[in-house]
Amino acid sequence: MCATYRALCRHGYADLTMQDIADEWEKSKAALHYHYDTKRGLLLAFLDHLFDSYTDRVTDSGSGTPRERLHALVAAALDPPRADATRELRTALVEVKAQAPHDDAFRERLARFDRYLHEEIRSVVGDGVESGAFRTDIDPDETATLLVTLVNGAHSRRVALGDDAGVPAAIRSYVDEHLVAGATTR
Amino acid sequence: MCATYRALCRHGYADLTMQDIADEWEKSKAALHYHYDTKRGLLLAFLDHLFDSYTDRVTDSGSGTPRERLHALVAAALDPPRADATRELRTALVEVKAQAPHDDAFRERLARFDRYLHEEIRSVVGDGVESGAFRTDIDPDETATLLVTLVNGAHSRRVALGDDAGVPAAIRSYVDEHLVAGATTR
Repeated sequence: MCATYRALCRHGYADLTMQDIADEWEKSKAALHYHYDTKRGLLLAFLDHLFDSYTDRVTDSGSGTPRERLHALVAAALDPPRADATRELRTALVEVKAQAPHDDAFRERLARFDRYLHEEIRSVVGDGVESGAFRTDIDPDETATLLVTLVNGAHSRRVALGDDAGVPAAIRSYVDEHLVAGATTR
Repeated sequence: MCATYRALCRHGYADLTMQDIADEWEKSKAALHYHYDTKRGLLLAFLDHLFDSYTDRVTDSGSGTPRERLHALVAAALDPPRADATRELRTALVEVKAQAPHDDAFRERLARFDRYLHEEIRSVVGDGVESGAFRTDIDPDETATLLVTLVNGAHSRRVALGDDAGVPAAIRSYVDEHLVAGATTR
């Protein structure tokens, strides 16, 4: 999986070959084929691996105020660790997304990330509404849809534009000014 | 440009050849090369063409309330016409986005769409804040950043997931419940 990660960062998805991955692994292509029949099969396994590390990292700690928990969740979803390599990986993942319309298995793997993040956010927002930390007229499900879409858009813009375009700050303001109960006006 | 559009929808970006475009154009590849040296040059011209039609279509009419104008702008940005072909085109554009990190000219072309939409939205939100239609504590610039990112995220999710995941409705709620002055609670 580490070799696949490095090969994806180096070559992108479209041009990636099993040989590239074998080279990063420092074993033969035959040894790689022993484990994975095709580049597609290996990539699906890699998406599973990414999903496992995503759920380890992007998870509600349950400690702190709902506002703090929500900020921490969104920050984790926006900014993966290993920032040096993430630009390349993120770009490769955009290429993988472009495969999704043609491939149910890719689509299903990608949808899992959104569904997982949606549930984490919905649960924290629900807690905040219940405890009175967030406005009582907020719909946790619609708020989760909005925030998951913002995270998607932030990744997409970062790949296409090369910078974050002020998106993380705008999301923080949205939470503090629109969700938090009795937020002060500027 | 129509031939490029059709060829992109049919073949996607990665596999697209000048021959594919010439075939759609029903002229020879030599005739096509007379106008464009490379696939890259033709695609840059195609992005300019898309941008022109985007600015024709996604534009503030200036009539109606700020709320109505904002809903119309966002709806136009979310839902291009020719819906039958847009899934394919949108997928091809995701592939083009994956080129952006490696190519300044692509990046600059893609950034223009976001900048243009940002300005249209910022101006309508500014009008709404000034007239009292929107809450006075709203920052038009941050609101525009949020909405442009939501539009990006909606397109990205639609390509990856194959459906809109309730995003248009969530954006409408955001406008009606968070931006409109004195919005009633549910």
